[in-house]
Amino acid sequence: MKFGGTSVADIDHIRRVARHVRREATSGHQVAVVVSAMAGNTNQLVAWTRDMAPLHDAREYDTVVAAGEQVTAGLLAIALQDLGVDARSWLGWQVPIRTDAAHGAARITDIDTATLEERLSRGQVAVVAGFQGVGPDNRIATLGRGGSDTSAVALAAAIGADRCDIYTDIDGVYTTDPRVVDTARRLDRLSHEEMLEMASLGAKVLQVRSVELAMVQGVRTFVRSSFDDPDQTAPDGANASVGTLICDEDEIMEKSVVTGIAYSRDEAQISLRRVADKPGVAAAVFGPLAEANINVDMIVQNVSEDGTLTDLTFTVTNADYERACKVIEESREQVGYEVMQGSTGVAKVSVIGVGMRSHAGVAAECFQALAAEKINIRAITTSEIKISVLIDADHTNLAVRTLHSLYGLDKN
Amino acid sequence: MKFGGTSVADIDHIRRVARHVRREATSGHQVAVVVSAMAGNTNQLVAWTRDMAPLHDAREYDTVVAAGEQVTAGLLAIALQDLGVDARSWLGWQVPIRTDAAHGAARITDIDTATLEERLSRGQVAVVAGFQGVGPDNRIATLGRGGSDTSAVALAAAIGADRCDIYTDIDGVYTTDPRVVDTARRLDRLSHEEMLEMASLGAKVLQVRSVELAMVQGVRTFVRSSFDDPDQTAPDGANASVGTLICDEDEIMEKSVVTGIAYSRDEAQISLRRVADKPGVAAAVFGPLAEANINVDMIVQNVSEDGTLTDLTFTVTNADYERACKVIEESREQVGYEVMQGSTGVAKVSVIGVGMRSHAGVAAECFQALAAEKINIRAITTSEIKISVLIDADHTNLAVRTLHSLYGLDKN
Repeated sequence: MKFGGTSVADIDHIRRVARHVRREATSGHQVAVVVSAMAGNTNQLVAWTRDMAPLHDAREYDTVVAAGEQVTAGLLAIALQDLGVDARSWLGWQVPIRTDAAHGAARITDIDTATLEERLSRGQVAVVAGFQGVGPDNRIATLGRGGSDTSAVALAAAIGADRCDIYTDIDGVYTTDPRVVDTARRLDRLSHEEMLEMASLGAKVLQVRSVELAMVQGVRTFVRSSFDDPDQTAPDGANASVGTLICDEDEIMEKSVVTGIAYSRDEAQISLRRVADKPGVAAAVFGPLAEANINVDMIVQNVSEDGTLTDLTFTVTNADYERACKVIEESREQVGYEVMQGSTGVAKVSVIGVGMRSHAGVAAECFQALAAEKINIRAITTSEIKISVLIDADHTNLAVRTLHSLYGLDKN
Repeated sequence: MKFGGTSVADIDHIRRVARHVRREATSGHQVAVVVSAMAGNTNQLVAWTRDMAPLHDAREYDTVVAAGEQVTAGLLAIALQDLGVDARSWLGWQVPIRTDAAHGAARITDIDTATLEERLSRGQVAVVAGFQGVGPDNRIATLGRGGSDTSAVALAAAIGADRCDIYTDIDGVYTTDPRVVDTARRLDRLSHEEMLEMASLGAKVLQVRSVELAMVQGVRTFVRSSFDDPDQTAPDGANASVGTLICDEDEIMEKSVVTGIAYSRDEAQISLRRVADKPGVAAAVFGPLAEANINVDMIVQNVSEDGTLTDLTFTVTNADYERACKVIEESREQVGYEVMQGSTGVAKVSVIGVGMRSHAGVAAECFQALAAEKINIRAITTSEIKISVLIDADHTNLAVRTLHSLYGLDKN
């Protein structure tokens, strides 16, 4: 069970979380719980390190920031004991959850679960501080923002958990954003691959990293709401709870062609016209952007007509747009483009579904439907299970609604 | 160097502390710094554990509460690095500072300083989180309130420090409370024994436990203000700073007969009249009080006239007075006293000085001076280096001022 910052925001919320845990523990499950810091606490700690010095030692940052999860782990253990549930807190270094040396954005390398599992088998609930481990230098290492999801999935894999339940402030993963499309449906099941596309494309349910890890490790992840009645037990156990199970494709009997529509409105587009079509050009463009810490999302490059000149289009966030333009202008000579064109206020809308693999025509239907609504497509990229189009941000809602209906995702 | 909660109350205060540390480090000293939590932070964490459950697992309490010092240790390390001082933070479990299993009020059993000393010898400043260690169960153990003073003294002893500088919000130990006697002088030197009497008698400068430890381990402790100019270096080094050195008696060349006058106003007196003077009576009185967690301070029992009946007087805090009376009434049969008399609103005034050992007449002078001011003495206890009298609380200031002048403690 994993509970995020809003689920443990204060003493009363933590008490509520304890009741969720008690329900599972008294249903006969062995339970490990991963907790985030109280909402706002991590921001406060991060702000202090920044106020102290804009550039600071990542190891000291980790020491400061990891204190947040330490506090919630201890408090939840107390809340559980107060409900008569045998429980204890575990900090990253106590388990230990070992990480690499990349302080501030460490990766988990190994979790030694021997002691933890022995306690679990005795019926003791393990409350594990999320977001943290211990580095090879024997110092606290944090996993980077949203790292508690990753802690939970990694721990679930390490102890061979039947399921990793992620409690959030929504009750599952939807076919699209319910704020945009009021007929959006909650999905009962979703493959890891689809969730990965949904997560990275703007459906802010789970951290991308944790979904990758769940996919690689085959961890079944159940997204559900922490605001459900914590004491209600379904007759056939917790599996009957409302939520979305993210699992291997094999576990999904009836695969729909399209599972969901994701979108991201916060995009800016940059196009380089008549770029020399030769090895090393892409590196000349994207190397300096990476060095400037600018994340590039969508990249489209066409086969050039005559093999000498091509067009290159990519997107960055609106916030990074001006910096990105400057970086590109500065590397104009190395890249050798003729014109740079750019525009903020674009959106990326994506159609996602593992069923696409075996169904032709999904992309064609998409383009036709958007054309019928007079929505101009600026650029297209596709993967095996995804079609993304770049459009004017003004048309985002219309496009999402159109595609949601087109692929039969509206609820009855 | 040890800095308490008010000295590290916020980012600016921690920056100021960093300048104090830089001054010492650049003077060629090897420096270890022990820090408390930011003022108010520990109270918040303690309140959360209490809100969660009035009775709670001390191990979880420790996990929660120790987070405060963890944060300041990391922040101070960042502040030092920002000033160009090589520094790193050390948590209790990292040093490690080993403690016994008494979570919430643990005692330090052993400090493994090998790694720390190696770093110190390389010129790196060690910023150590106070108040915490790691218990035999490999879990965080806190030393109880005010434990950071104890951490500092224990660490100073373990690394064989020349001195343990305790930075507080006052600039040293005074002959008495300057708020009561405006001619009170700051003492340059004071023996551990005297400080112990001063500390336990109400001069709230250092935790009693830390003074005991400093005495046993022979740690020279220097009490000074963290609000001094942090960048001012005395021509002959830090020893010239303003403050009070607490050291072995041998180090004090000119011993004054009386060093200071301490007082405690928050006292209540209970007298049991005509108690059977037989073995086990004192245990019958004080056993039940200890069980009820009532701290007894002064105890006076006179030799009985005929060997059968005696009077017993003791003091408790005003807050404990009513509970104490109830406990005594309940054990009336076992104790077998005739009358219980009691009174709140009494004060204890004490005259302290190692020179008393070799000077007769100090006590007689004290009693005469108080009599001359028509201050009635309710009870008297003495030790080798201390005379304490119990008087009406209304006369506290007069008594302190009278004794301060009597023993020549007023500043010129």
